[in-house]
Amino acid sequence: MSNKTGIRSKSISNIKILASSKSFLEGGKWIVNEDIHELLYGRTWKAKMKKRNLDPDYYEEEYGFNKRYVVHFPKDSKDKLQLTSADLMEDAGRKAILESGLKKKDISLVIAVSTTSHRYTTSLGAIVAGRLGLKCASFEMKAGCSSGIYALVTASQLAQATKGNVLIVSGETLSRVASGHFFYAAGDGGAAVILSYTPNKNCGIQSCYLDSDGSYSEKMGVPGTLPPTREAFEKNKYFFQSSGDINSFIESKWKEIPKLLYKNANISSSQIKLLIPHQVNNRLIEVCRKAAKISPDKVINKVGEYANCGQASILIALNDAIKEERISNGDYFLLCAVGGGLAWGGILWRY
Amino acid sequence: MSNKTGIRSKSISNIKILASSKSFLEGGKWIVNEDIHELLYGRTWKAKMKKRNLDPDYYEEEYGFNKRYVVHFPKDSKDKLQLTSADLMEDAGRKAILESGLKKKDISLVIAVSTTSHRYTTSLGAIVAGRLGLKCASFEMKAGCSSGIYALVTASQLAQATKGNVLIVSGETLSRVASGHFFYAAGDGGAAVILSYTPNKNCGIQSCYLDSDGSYSEKMGVPGTLPPTREAFEKNKYFFQSSGDINSFIESKWKEIPKLLYKNANISSSQIKLLIPHQVNNRLIEVCRKAAKISPDKVINKVGEYANCGQASILIALNDAIKEERISNGDYFLLCAVGGGLAWGGILWRY
Repeated sequence: MSNKTGIRSKSISNIKILASSKSFLEGGKWIVNEDIHELLYGRTWKAKMKKRNLDPDYYEEEYGFNKRYVVHFPKDSKDKLQLTSADLMEDAGRKAILESGLKKKDISLVIAVSTTSHRYTTSLGAIVAGRLGLKCASFEMKAGCSSGIYALVTASQLAQATKGNVLIVSGETLSRVASGHFFYAAGDGGAAVILSYTPNKNCGIQSCYLDSDGSYSEKMGVPGTLPPTREAFEKNKYFFQSSGDINSFIESKWKEIPKLLYKNANISSSQIKLLIPHQVNNRLIEVCRKAAKISPDKVINKVGEYANCGQASILIALNDAIKEERISNGDYFLLCAVGGGLAWGGILWRY
Repeated sequence: MSNKTGIRSKSISNIKILASSKSFLEGGKWIVNEDIHELLYGRTWKAKMKKRNLDPDYYEEEYGFNKRYVVHFPKDSKDKLQLTSADLMEDAGRKAILESGLKKKDISLVIAVSTTSHRYTTSLGAIVAGRLGLKCASFEMKAGCSSGIYALVTASQLAQATKGNVLIVSGETLSRVASGHFFYAAGDGGAAVILSYTPNKNCGIQSCYLDSDGSYSEKMGVPGTLPPTREAFEKNKYFFQSSGDINSFIESKWKEIPKLLYKNANISSSQIKLLIPHQVNNRLIEVCRKAAKISPDKVINKVGEYANCGQASILIALNDAIKEERISNGDYFLLCAVGGGLAWGGILWRY
């Protein structure tokens, strides 16, 4: 059928989530919306915003953003806040390895996902694996805010094929490319997951879906060219930008993903214990929740705590779901993400 | 066993190479060693090099470098030479799709490999898929000069699992990060491969090996941090650098790879029709050839024609091997690469 785009696998079985972690490493700081008001409008932001008829509660009420962790904040000295995505990935990776009980030699592959690497040509896979003292295969991968979904599918496939253990490390430092109102949405954070082969056939991906439409690739991202040029510097091109005319397309994808996952796994919404969406904002999480026919109490929403940590957000949320015991062995849960690229995808997982 | 690092799969069967291509797109230019002598030592380079006791033939005699295609050359106006890795990937991808006879909707995944993307946060997978008019899953991946090997293994796994067609697009524009003597080694270029599911069980990966050691990750690459800083820009930190104290480690890996591939596939060197190494330089290709116990006439060596096109080099060489009919259906051939990260790997493939 001509409308069946992307990858639509029925199942990638025999995979368990052996360990998970998150990182908001010491050295960054936690800020609230008021800090951003002050950054954008100065110390007298209350008066200034009132004069311009701007509602200080808009970003919380409309999108859910309030608190977030950042490694960089323009008001602070650069010396104080200079963590990179690799630092968050390393911290999360170390915690996950410790939790797993694995020896370092038991990990056969590191997949490093980030859209905000601190290095140009060098793979974050090698950088982070090296810092963790791992000698194993490693690569970096990137698919916008859906990178976590893409990495979970690829890692499941490779863990199944090799009957091995795959470490996914994810880190995002969007604060380094934030300016203006993007500061309200952007959060920094890291996460890690270890996927392992298990003889239990029931565990793992029941259905998955990966897709993209690159005709939107210039609509969202950092426009400045690499390697950096003086001209792009002078024109402030190394900050994140997005244009608004992609919202209806994005919304349509959020609606499609859960339906497709149910259909291909032959599982109904009533069997789903938890929905773990990319933590983009309350509005789109609600679009996804309704399409997935899940009650509000069965959704992980940490937008108010961490804001949108890019591709790291869904793996941070997955860790929270596990640590808060919101999923148990045998439970079905959904992961869904739509983001830059545009790339999107989802997984119906049995824990 | 504690010394068994990385991923060592026995086979990923039922995969054929449906199409391949390379790209040295119009808009770049071909230069020879003399052009680089002139760039580095001026118009009177013959006299200047003689005075400094420098042999103009050194890079050709020692490493094999002579001709290469570049999209950027400091002597030319930037307006004339401004192609990006994505441009080469797009051109190669278009040629491969045309050759494959596939309809665009038949491609389920694009894997884009490059260490020299022109964009910071955005995935080259989406950018190139979008330009090609493909609606499918897409991601970018990076593992230094071994990225091509990593992509072939990952693509084989996903093509096998989904019984689909995966397009790998590879592009490298090292000339944009070249300075000094690195100009002799660096070449630009693009390539593409389409891997497809086939009912023929004999076709595809007979054994593969992926590994890395990130303790060397700072020894080779572009040191300037991203997002770019003015300080690093002013200090010329966005050029490629490498330190020499990694050569013996690199050489040891070139020697290990072929032996491991033979052992895990239970195939001997006498059965190998062709060795396709990463086109790093004549000296290391010779190290690999000897370790693989292959006669010189069974090695693809294009170093003199294209120089070292980074991770794109092995996929360009694979295309040349196919187009020059140096492999036929049923033939066994080897792909081996060691590069930045450090990451390395190999594939024993049955065509």
